[in-house]
Amino acid sequence: MAFDVVIRNGTLLTMDDGMRTIPSGWIGVRGGHIRALEAGNGSPPSATLTIDADGGIVMPGLVNTHTHLPMTLFRGLADDLPLLTWLNEHIFPAEARFIEPQAVHWATLLACAELLLSGTTCCCDGYFHEAAVAGAVADTGLRAVLGQGVIDFPAPGVPDPAENVAHAAEYVRHWQAQSPLIQPSIFCHAPYTCSDRTLTAAKAMAGELGALFQVHAAETRFERDQSIQDKGVSPVAHLDRLGILDPKTLLAHCVWVDAADMDAMARSGCGVAHCPESNMKLASGIAPVASLREKGIPVGLGTDGSASNNNLDLFAEMATAAKLHKVASGDPTALNAASALRMATIEGARAIGMAERIGSLEIGKQADIIVVDTRAPHLTPLYHPDSHLIYAAAGADVRHVLVDGTLRVRDRQLLGIDVNTIMERVNAIARKIQRKPVG
Amino acid sequence: MAFDVVIRNGTLLTMDDGMRTIPSGWIGVRGGHIRALEAGNGSPPSATLTIDADGGIVMPGLVNTHTHLPMTLFRGLADDLPLLTWLNEHIFPAEARFIEPQAVHWATLLACAELLLSGTTCCCDGYFHEAAVAGAVADTGLRAVLGQGVIDFPAPGVPDPAENVAHAAEYVRHWQAQSPLIQPSIFCHAPYTCSDRTLTAAKAMAGELGALFQVHAAETRFERDQSIQDKGVSPVAHLDRLGILDPKTLLAHCVWVDAADMDAMARSGCGVAHCPESNMKLASGIAPVASLREKGIPVGLGTDGSASNNNLDLFAEMATAAKLHKVASGDPTALNAASALRMATIEGARAIGMAERIGSLEIGKQADIIVVDTRAPHLTPLYHPDSHLIYAAAGADVRHVLVDGTLRVRDRQLLGIDVNTIMERVNAIARKIQRKPVG
Ligand SMILES: [Zn+2]
Ligand SMILES: [Zn+2]
Repeated sequence: MAFDVVIRNGTLLTMDDGMRTIPSGWIGVRGGHIRALEAGNGSPPSATLTIDADGGIVMPGLVNTHTHLPMTLFRGLADDLPLLTWLNEHIFPAEARFIEPQAVHWATLLACAELLLSGTTCCCDGYFHEAAVAGAVADTGLRAVLGQGVIDFPAPGVPDPAENVAHAAEYVRHWQAQSPLIQPSIFCHAPYTCSDRTLTAAKAMAGELGALFQVHAAETRFERDQSIQDKGVSPVAHLDRLGILDPKTLLAHCVWVDAADMDAMARSGCGVAHCPESNMKLASGIAPVASLREKGIPVGLGTDGSASNNNLDLFAEMATAAKLHKVASGDPTALNAASALRMATIEGARAIGMAERIGSLEIGKQADIIVVDTRAPHLTPLYHPDSHLIYAAAGADVRHVLVDGTLRVRDRQLLGIDVNTIMERVNAIARKIQRKPVG
Repeated sequence: MAFDVVIRNGTLLTMDDGMRTIPSGWIGVRGGHIRALEAGNGSPPSATLTIDADGGIVMPGLVNTHTHLPMTLFRGLADDLPLLTWLNEHIFPAEARFIEPQAVHWATLLACAELLLSGTTCCCDGYFHEAAVAGAVADTGLRAVLGQGVIDFPAPGVPDPAENVAHAAEYVRHWQAQSPLIQPSIFCHAPYTCSDRTLTAAKAMAGELGALFQVHAAETRFERDQSIQDKGVSPVAHLDRLGILDPKTLLAHCVWVDAADMDAMARSGCGVAHCPESNMKLASGIAPVASLREKGIPVGLGTDGSASNNNLDLFAEMATAAKLHKVASGDPTALNAASALRMATIEGARAIGMAERIGSLEIGKQADIIVVDTRAPHLTPLYHPDSHLIYAAAGADVRHVLVDGTLRVRDRQLLGIDVNTIMERVNAIARKIQRKPVG
């Protein structure tokens, strides 16, 4: 029984329920799935492609549960500003002027290149012109859940908000049949930018189509206070009252949630995308991740868009999360390395409804696998692989990346993606943005 | 007038008082100093070595104001533990068993390799067997302030605490004449591990020798509370009462300082090493950096040792600092990109008494210069260099490194340092540490 791909000579971090580590072993891949996972380095069977992990760490590809891929276009355009100045004077006007399908196409390709190079093999996205996002993502071979944006304002590609849910439904129907790697989804921007009617219609449509429903929720204290003032309840309680929380709903942020909110979330089975770097940079606050996880709510990690982070490196996000929750709680044992790793892999996969297929190295799962190079000064010596991945490694340490059994990054180089052309095209659009300063 | 080195075709971030940026320019180096700094890329004069920055960012080498270099040996040995368990059951016993001059030599070489590769050209260190540290640092060409540890307990290399200040003085005298790149210093461990007599004697000796005096101060709430209980004053007030604060004193951490402490520090002219990642990971707290800086106290950034961080990447430290102080204050304009950059360069240099010589690109300063490669997906597009350096870049983006006018890293490769041998030797010692688990 031959394999398509064998990865040998690595420490296998399975991220399975028992957090099994195989200090020196090999993985066999066939038909896009993991078919063998064995200890020993004697002589793994032959394969069309054999990858020598060279003593590095072999682990599941990372899962980024909250992105806005085309926002790479606005990376570093405006930083260190008050939230409303940033949004109203920079990001919203830039989106209104420059977000069209071609710009979305190139900016998304750039984001996918960055994700793959730093070890992310699956992301959960939400933006406008999501069909253009999906086309670009499909070109790169990344796995993704891609949500068409829904908002009660004229938006790029959806000038009439009355059409927003229908537009999203049409997108989902089209992309459900296009690529095994792409799961279309519906992404409502937020409870404060979508009416109750829009939220319930969008959730009903997502349910009918079997698609993940995503929404920003309880990101800022202002949002929470406004919700209580205007609606009498918190953002999460409001969504709960509308019947929107269930295992096919993903809430992004959840910084300002109380015990009752968390109980409602836990009962519902919904997932959470925790974005610590974005929440820190925009001074939104610190999500109660320990409490959320104690209640059994699946919490993944997300970078958020490149205008508020400003990279898509999930290794940096893991490192930040592990340290942030220690200092926030005053407890150096909070969010240990293994927990941060689980959030970026299997728990993130669970949050976006993909845990049956990805998020761990187990026989039968899709072969989304990364190899981390540990032969570098900053990763020497190596006592505990999980500790190194969280407290010492960076995205640049990722050496090889497989998605669905196909090698997409080899020796830190993208395969089949012309990254120089992508950077040139994005730079050309960025020059136009820079010539027409907004605000 | 020919140069030894010319760096051309880069965006020059000078970090001078006016924060001048030269979008496209060149730098001329001769005799280890910066001799020219010019706009334009027409045809810079000839030089023995011309480095093409290839459109990247040219900036002063980073200054890491608080390290314990040999602790690379314990990188990731013990994480996610309560502070006292970590110290008493892991770090202290490991130090007692394994810290001797040969181990210090190889672990320090490893640290220097990591520092240079990630763009740090000067560090301020404190540890035991500091003569072995100095020998290794001198071998690598890194610039450093290196403090011999003083503590009122038997310590590696100083079995009799009664000799601790004399031992440090002997070390300082010896190394003051050895290398223009190395400034010997005296490093008292902390006010709670050194008696008043030891602290005052060590500071007096440092003053006599013209050396920087370093001390950990006000790192944890426990330390602060104990100081108030036992001595009636805070750790900083205690040091102030002993006459230890002056412009040649560097206080590491200063997490638990009040307004009176900060006023005393500001009056004295002492510097601070702020170590946000170590303080987060050990759950020590968040230093009041905005207040310290508003009072005019020079605050540099430090990684602390590799057992509590666990890397020496000052780019990661800058990113963490900029985001941490935003979320801690609830103000997204707090510690902006330019401020974080200043802390990691000129302000750090000021904190350790080196601002006349390093920390900015200015004519007459030592040529400690790094080139950051911006042609990567995660740094595309580029609107504002300072924003990219803080919110998107990583240590791995550093391409070339000059210290004192000598090229030490070219195209991400160390020159004249056999990093593979260093890693092998450290791994061999680490295997012994792993075979004799402590605690
Ligand atoms: Zn978002
Ligand atoms: Zn320290």
